[in-house]
Amino acid sequence: MNYYSSQITNLIEELSKLPGIGAKSAQRLAFHIINMPQEQVDRLSGAMVEAKRNVRYCKECFTLTDQELCPICSSGGRDHQTIMVVENSRDLAAYEKTGKYHGIYHVLHGAISPMLGIGPGDIKLKELIQRLQGEIKEVIIATNSSLEGETTAMYISKLVKPTGIKVSRIASGVPVGGDLEYIDEVTLLRALEGRVEL
Amino acid sequence: MNYYSSQITNLIEELSKLPGIGAKSAQRLAFHIINMPQEQVDRLSGAMVEAKRNVRYCKECFTLTDQELCPICSSGGRDHQTIMVVENSRDLAAYEKTGKYHGIYHVLHGAISPMLGIGPGDIKLKELIQRLQGEIKEVIIATNSSLEGETTAMYISKLVKPTGIKVSRIASGVPVGGDLEYIDEVTLLRALEGRVEL
Repeated sequence: MNYYSSQITNLIEELSKLPGIGAKSAQRLAFHIINMPQEQVDRLSGAMVEAKRNVRYCKECFTLTDQELCPICSSGGRDHQTIMVVENSRDLAAYEKTGKYHGIYHVLHGAISPMLGIGPGDIKLKELIQRLQGEIKEVIIATNSSLEGETTAMYISKLVKPTGIKVSRIASGVPVGGDLEYIDEVTLLRALEGRVEL
Repeated sequence: MNYYSSQITNLIEELSKLPGIGAKSAQRLAFHIINMPQEQVDRLSGAMVEAKRNVRYCKECFTLTDQELCPICSSGGRDHQTIMVVENSRDLAAYEKTGKYHGIYHVLHGAISPMLGIGPGDIKLKELIQRLQGEIKEVIIATNSSLEGETTAMYISKLVKPTGIKVSRIASGVPVGGDLEYIDEVTLLRALEGRVEL
């Protein structure tokens, strides 16, 4: 790409290493960045460096935060006896957006996947078990509804049950607004199995 | 978004200002950046700041470069008597990728668009006319095949013709590999009008 100068080429290369950004998007972003006001470029690059430098795991729930304890774990307004187990911080954010969950979380940072060689020791499972020694009433497993997520859910449920703490799994079924015609068979069967009396 | 810490929220906000990056992508990118090795974050943020600081217009053809003259304008191996007029640096790059064009370029940084209020004075047209006072044999107009691109092409051709310099327009027609069935009528008519004898 010697038709661009080296600094443009360099920026395009760095941008194209990001997930979901191909060669064309990287080029478009690079030209956009070059044409942005200086302050905005400084804010963007500064935000990256600052976030990378200061963000770490919450020492309680392991979500990403820039404090020792995340805003949820340090909040007095939450139910600290109910833990929802999620695969990552984005899943936590998805449940927080509903505004209806008032418990706390535990972020695993992955799911058990024999295919990818990710075992129980590679995710924050030991840390979850340690937390159960506190006063916990319920563990809600909200891992994804994928093979890995289900495997992880089964594994956690087997670990938690002996402690006597209630374990539950979020419901699997037809999404709200979903048209049955377009929904896969496994989901339809799950929806049938999980039917509730009216 | 108080379920993220302020620095993550800040990074997501800055990223979502980029073109083509919505709230979800910005979130995904932010978490990716936080998990990248420190050196890679520094390289990415540094590349932005450096490119923004040093990249300017080539004083000859107005493409983006970090030198006074871009690699093409300063090359001895190019035909400096043939100028291809393009709307922006990405279009220049597209023609350079073919590896078959050996002339030089002129980057307009836009196209005439009465709809958007962009007149001839808002793009690098005056600068093109000035360049024609040198020893130029041909001006190839390679603006887009859109309404704005065609308007600009007509405008340039009228400006260049009185100088006696040859003016040409890149061909419009069916793309290579294109299936006639799926090609719009205007393109089909253009292809017909522009037919060449075999």
